[in-house]
Amino acid sequence: MNRTVIIVAGGAGRRMKLDVPKQFALLAGIPILMHTIKLFYSYSTDLEIIVALPEQYADYWNELCAKFQFKICHKIALGGETRFHTVKNSLLLSVKKELIAIHDGVRPFVSKETIERCYRLAENKGTAVPCVPIPESIRMVQGNNNFPANRDQYRLIQTPQVFQWPILNKAYEQSYSIEFTDDASVVEKAGFPIYLTEGNYENIKITTPADLVFAEALMKRQRENLS
Amino acid sequence: MNRTVIIVAGGAGRRMKLDVPKQFALLAGIPILMHTIKLFYSYSTDLEIIVALPEQYADYWNELCAKFQFKICHKIALGGETRFHTVKNSLLLSVKKELIAIHDGVRPFVSKETIERCYRLAENKGTAVPCVPIPESIRMVQGNNNFPANRDQYRLIQTPQVFQWPILNKAYEQSYSIEFTDDASVVEKAGFPIYLTEGNYENIKITTPADLVFAEALMKRQRENLS
Repeated sequence: MNRTVIIVAGGAGRRMKLDVPKQFALLAGIPILMHTIKLFYSYSTDLEIIVALPEQYADYWNELCAKFQFKICHKIALGGETRFHTVKNSLLLSVKKELIAIHDGVRPFVSKETIERCYRLAENKGTAVPCVPIPESIRMVQGNNNFPANRDQYRLIQTPQVFQWPILNKAYEQSYSIEFTDDASVVEKAGFPIYLTEGNYENIKITTPADLVFAEALMKRQRENLS
Repeated sequence: MNRTVIIVAGGAGRRMKLDVPKQFALLAGIPILMHTIKLFYSYSTDLEIIVALPEQYADYWNELCAKFQFKICHKIALGGETRFHTVKNSLLLSVKKELIAIHDGVRPFVSKETIERCYRLAENKGTAVPCVPIPESIRMVQGNNNFPANRDQYRLIQTPQVFQWPILNKAYEQSYSIEFTDDASVVEKAGFPIYLTEGNYENIKITTPADLVFAEALMKRQRENLS
């Protein structure tokens, strides 16, 4: 089946206290979002790549592409009010319409193995979501009370979340709900089961300054391993 | 109230695939455990410091202290079969017996503010456990099924976990149970309520090689900020 990836970079980056949204912050000298796009391109040059950007940053992105001589071919979708609306806008741009991965622009460390596992599982089962175990003890909080919880019963959810086109398209025909925290939740609400597969531990979402410190260290290690 | 800390470094480090347990792995040139001890000492030089080690590494630790000219005064407790037994052994060494913090030896990035918050809350309420929000979406797994879960209802649990002596002592008079995943679970089983407070995001438990990469980067940043 033909493969598409929608890379969602619609956030305004308020948590990072940066002048620009976090997807444009520099990591090893180039914007995080470019690392993420390069990673999918190096996974497969046949991929249809759609990048969803906040409307007010479309020109800025074009300037960045010129400045960094970024040549990987991709379509631009404009971000909507919420992630749901952003993905919905992005779906309109897909011409391949078979297997659609949706990935966070600020996750530049997803492994090729994780991407491949997700596409394969979705090709077989219709949906695929990568996850990893929770590395620490957890507790449940309700009002002023808190209770022990068994971390083995939970998984941290990552992206890319991959879906067959008819499933995803049908899911995004629903009206928006605040319950929609990720694409899996939208698809699940439409009545489709979610299949989990193994993610990779390094596949972090860069949302805080500490994450950026970790990201720089991971990038440095990757380069040392390659050289 | 007088303050004691038990630093638990009883693990055999199998997950790290290291020649030595992870608490002895070098971070910025010195063993992780020494960073952790130094951190509590710099928090308060009045602290009673007890370090719990695997029995077979007691001599090795003495050699490390000589090699690295590590002079901070601490008592050595020998690790038991499980963490429960290790803490129980360590409690026997406390002479101050008022406020007891129990901290993971492989968490060298707990902030002084977190330590202070935990001691203060335990002084007021009897128990104190630091925690942070879960930074990603989570799902619950049961057999072959999985369900959405609201991450806002859960917290990642850290250390130091601090308790007033009579509570902790009573809790550790119980027989061992496999439900005892941390000290809070032991104390809770004895019928005492657990009070949560804010931890710090950088207060990671170093258990994998990727954690060590992150730790090196955090350490480097701390040193740059200090200089």
